[in-house]
Amino acid sequence: MLEQLKQAVLEANLALPAYHLVTFTWGNVSAVDREKGLVVIKPSGVEYTDMEASDMVVVDLHTGERIEGDKNPSSDTATHLALYRQFPEIGGIVHTHSRHATIWSQAGLDLPAWGTTHADYFYGNIPCTRRMTEAEINGAYELETGNVIIETFLARGLDAMQVPAVLVHSHGPFAWGKNAADAVHNAVVLEECAYMGIFSRQLTPALGDMQKPLMDKHYLRKHGKNAYYGQLK
Amino acid sequence: MLEQLKQAVLEANLALPAYHLVTFTWGNVSAVDREKGLVVIKPSGVEYTDMEASDMVVVDLHTGERIEGDKNPSSDTATHLALYRQFPEIGGIVHTHSRHATIWSQAGLDLPAWGTTHADYFYGNIPCTRRMTEAEINGAYELETGNVIIETFLARGLDAMQVPAVLVHSHGPFAWGKNAADAVHNAVVLEECAYMGIFSRQLTPALGDMQKPLMDKHYLRKHGKNAYYGQLK
Amino acid sequence: MLEQLKQAVLEANLALPAYHLVTFTWGNVSAVDREKGLVVIKPSGVEYTDMEASDMVVVDLHTGERIEGDKNPSSDTATHLALYRQFPEIGGIVHTHSRHATIWSQAGLDLPAWGTTHADYFYGNIPCTRRMTEAEINGAYELETGNVIIETFLARGLDAMQVPAVLVHSHGPFAWGKNAADAVHNAVVLEECAYMGIFSRQLTPALGDMQKPLMDKHYLRKHGKNAYYGQLK
Amino acid sequence: MLEQLKQAVLEANLALPAYHLVTFTWGNVSAVDREKGLVVIKPSGVEYTDMEASDMVVVDLHTGERIEGDKNPSSDTATHLALYRQFPEIGGIVHTHSRHATIWSQAGLDLPAWGTTHADYFYGNIPCTRRMTEAEINGAYELETGNVIIETFLARGLDAMQVPAVLVHSHGPFAWGKNAADAVHNAVVLEECAYMGIFSRQLTPALGDMQKPLMDKHYLRKHGKNAYYGQLK
Repeated sequence: MLEQLKQAVLEANLALPAYHLVTFTWGNVSAVDREKGLVVIKPSGVEYTDMEASDMVVVDLHTGERIEGDKNPSSDTATHLALYRQFPEIGGIVHTHSRHATIWSQAGLDLPAWGTTHADYFYGNIPCTRRMTEAEINGAYELETGNVIIETFLARGLDAMQVPAVLVHSHGPFAWGKNAADAVHNAVVLEECAYMGIFSRQLTPALGDMQKPLMDKHYLRKHGKNAYYGQLK
Repeated sequence: MLEQLKQAVLEANLALPAYHLVTFTWGNVSAVDREKGLVVIKPSGVEYTDMEASDMVVVDLHTGERIEGDKNPSSDTATHLALYRQFPEIGGIVHTHSRHATIWSQAGLDLPAWGTTHADYFYGNIPCTRRMTEAEINGAYELETGNVIIETFLARGLDAMQVPAVLVHSHGPFAWGKNAADAVHNAVVLEECAYMGIFSRQLTPALGDMQKPLMDKHYLRKHGKNAYYGQLK
Repeated sequence: MLEQLKQAVLEANLALPAYHLVTFTWGNVSAVDREKGLVVIKPSGVEYTDMEASDMVVVDLHTGERIEGDKNPSSDTATHLALYRQFPEIGGIVHTHSRHATIWSQAGLDLPAWGTTHADYFYGNIPCTRRMTEAEINGAYELETGNVIIETFLARGLDAMQVPAVLVHSHGPFAWGKNAADAVHNAVVLEECAYMGIFSRQLTPALGDMQKPLMDKHYLRKHGKNAYYGQLK
Repeated sequence: MLEQLKQAVLEANLALPAYHLVTFTWGNVSAVDREKGLVVIKPSGVEYTDMEASDMVVVDLHTGERIEGDKNPSSDTATHLALYRQFPEIGGIVHTHSRHATIWSQAGLDLPAWGTTHADYFYGNIPCTRRMTEAEINGAYELETGNVIIETFLARGLDAMQVPAVLVHSHGPFAWGKNAADAVHNAVVLEECAYMGIFSRQLTPALGDMQKPLMDKHYLRKHGKNAYYGQLK
């Protein structure tokens, strides 16, 4: 079942150590099959070097029930499912503790859009969620993690496809995209921007936002109907 | 004698350069056989590339006497032995000068628990010891290094298995665990958290502790009787 | 056509990931044949691992028209052409988002000449352009990017061959040289100096310029008629 | 002539890129044969990948005259010779622009002894020279670079074998040792301490010296007649 999607999810998971986004098993990628209402996700706590496509776990998008696979799905599964259910355009999701994005999460700060590297992929700041409450943490924690992400996007009026990443307070980043590979791509860019942001702010502590027209130009030359970057437009 | 444990200690020592925790020979791992009252430890000043299981040195847990091996045991042996004698649950110990943990040691600061990466492994701040006194330094220095670590844990009421690492002031980290591999694992996490801590504090200089319920949630979902993370629970 | 130049441009492009100057496809190198009035440049949005010499695109130096190649030229082509037209000694140009040079671009600061590493290659500070105006951004953006670089060099009276790099505000670096390989060489040095500059300033916040005679000595022992460094003088 | 020493100098030079101490050709190692009064040094501006033992250049310790080799010796040769002539115990010298040691040079600051990593190799702070004067720079510059290093050691009463490295102001580090390999070893340690020093000071801006007894303990357990570290004592 879903052999092609499992292979894609496996490859996206294996890309995490290749891009230096994870230590040990600290990351997971999933993808959704919207027609079938199923999500394929990495098993929990399994070494990347030992993983095969057949280890990927299939769960129900709506109930979270395990449909296929002998292993437990990632402990973050409920967070992934909440995001898929809320944002119908998301095809793949990645969670990591990549160093520099996590630093912004730990510092509890949005990652500002400070250059065209950022604007080529993210249409505005990457938001950091509020701290979670004790009730959320001691309740359905992983589901509530998804809910606080959703709350952040709704409260700020953000389009999840235009800002395909978030920083969970005191935790780390989630990124997403139209499929699993695209989600990993965005996670790499986020990490790159997070690194550069730390030191951009060190050099210019009161650094303001980049100019809005430059943000528009860069984001829109790669996304949407007027895109002209690359070979396919 | 203790061939299996020697092999495990060798592999744990070889993991140190693989995880970029050591330069030259600046690190050592040991493990204890509690029944036999013996400790297996890396020889002193030997290159990792030249090391074999048969180079591992066996010493008496209580007297420190060399029981087997033609090489001198690590010069830090007395520190390891003191920790094994004080904390009966420790099965393996690692000492490195890994860059970012050492930075916190040199700065003389505890590493605060600033995120779930930390809370997944350490149940609270990683303590930094006080400076050692001249008498301690000029006395049985390596033993006294162990004693100042023990003093730190006792004075603060810390459980060594819940906070399996320490920063020795002006020196560097020790980490431990239920066996040699687990000790190295904790040393890797410590280094990761130490790196992220430096820049989390740069972004938010007055950064407070992470919320206690989040610490509890992350630590306890991986440790103790209510753990549910991974495949084995 | 221009097979040798295409090969040189391919190799220079492949040097970008080898020197860790690019992530994904975020960089491009070109070279000019001044006699023929043609520029060879990397195609837009193509993976480095898939690139061959025959993928390089040939465009007209003056009109920008594509003369050869089935792929679109780099989206930054108009910037490259503007620089070639203004500065007749430039033989190759490279654009990257290399981390530390981009940090200075994002911070909107010139990179000061703080040591002999810098002075061996760059005869003075690396300038950061002003922010671009909305009209420039929404007009012929890539051409205007070239124009703001040119304006920066003219306004400050800089010799483009003596300071073969620039930081485009909120964007990233361009570097150049007598050919494509030389341009990449300068981009590597720029990145190295950009890294060291961040932390030199951290250690000594009010760091002044290096002494002028030292700058002269180092630049002039490697460049111009009195050079004596290396094997070829 | 001196085939064994040439091989040792070649290997020490090749260790520089292996330890990530150099970019391009920015580094050089030499060694001295005191009996013959000859120094073997890397040729100037030659790629590490192309270098062979037979490329090493032999120069006279006292006159600097090239005795053997078809290539020019390193442009820093006169600095090396000055140090060999002043400090009779030095057997090998290395110069690099390694990133973090160079940062301290550019910042114009001594690297303080902030931990046992430092004290295991360097008996006190690594001094930074004063800025060179215009007359020195425009005179016999490379020789004067050696002279300002010597002045620094004499003025501060430092023993060059106990503090086997220096930071040349606005330039970069030199390190040395009893032979070429030992010099490279010290250069690696210097770079490690330089890295850790930047961030130790970031965490604790007013960080004072490490306790003197700890410095004594660590330096003296590895050096001099009471050393007990490693296998050979």
